[in-house]
Amino acid sequence: MVESSFAKRVSVEQVEEGHELAPKFDEHGLIAAVTTDSKTGDVLMLGYMNAEALAKTIETGEAHYWSRSRKVLWHKGATSGLVQKVVDLRIDDDQDAVWLKVEVAGSGASCHVGYMSCFYRSIPTGQAPKPELQLQYQESSKTFDPTEVYGDAPNPTKL
Amino acid sequence: MVESSFAKRVSVEQVEEGHELAPKFDEHGLIAAVTTDSKTGDVLMLGYMNAEALAKTIETGEAHYWSRSRKVLWHKGATSGLVQKVVDLRIDDDQDAVWLKVEVAGSGASCHVGYMSCFYRSIPTGQAPKPELQLQYQESSKTFDPTEVYGDAPNPTKL
Repeated sequence: MVESSFAKRVSVEQVEEGHELAPKFDEHGLIAAVTTDSKTGDVLMLGYMNAEALAKTIETGEAHYWSRSRKVLWHKGATSGLVQKVVDLRIDDDQDAVWLKVEVAGSGASCHVGYMSCFYRSIPTGQAPKPELQLQYQESSKTFDPTEVYGDAPNPTKL
Repeated sequence: MVESSFAKRVSVEQVEEGHELAPKFDEHGLIAAVTTDSKTGDVLMLGYMNAEALAKTIETGEAHYWSRSRKVLWHKGATSGLVQKVVDLRIDDDQDAVWLKVEVAGSGASCHVGYMSCFYRSIPTGQAPKPELQLQYQESSKTFDPTEVYGDAPNPTKL
């Protein structure tokens, strides 16, 4: 069991103020993972890891996630070549989220749609939202053609 | 219904490549929210928003979350004074996560334990994890005393 790789959660003090890695996986066995570009500080993606993905990321220094849409362990970049090398891996106060600072191979992109960051659109603020609200694109062009890279693999986005 | 503030999700193309805000809330009615410091690029926290928290954040330009431990709408900084002013609010490709770039009032801290970032500890990489692994502190001291700021309010960390 890969879960035995981690410490047991025994107290709030241990979890918040200690030196033990005692991650909390949710009811689906997952922990949230925020990934930022180590050079720009931009958030590239928000993914999820199960215990095996977290252990693989720690062991290899390359980002592994759990694909919720494909339901498989996902070595990021295995298909696209856009591997994420972990420069720093952090755990948060209550140990239910991790933050990966990464260097991305190749073009540096991390989004399956073709953009550098999955967060390529801004939401205008300052008034109450309504369905007519218009998102603003923050990346002017894609860095790669998804159909060339992924072929006819199913799109992971679910409605 | 605050949900009617947003567009309905009708197609993958609309969600990924369109200009409509059509967020996907999970089975608990929540969307993940990554918050970074607009100056340092550091990830400060990972929180969650329900539809009301997202709408309030958009309308006011100040970060609102849903507190999963207290089960209330949470205007960040209402107790501590450490309000998060949103400089840029982003939505990701499949619209199930948001990224807030913020300026934090006061000392600039965002973590209830007293640190600037909730992610104040690193996980060493390069070998398989085991329970003896030692987290490395990346912040040498707290910016505030949680007992002074929060008094005897219940700690939000759950085992």
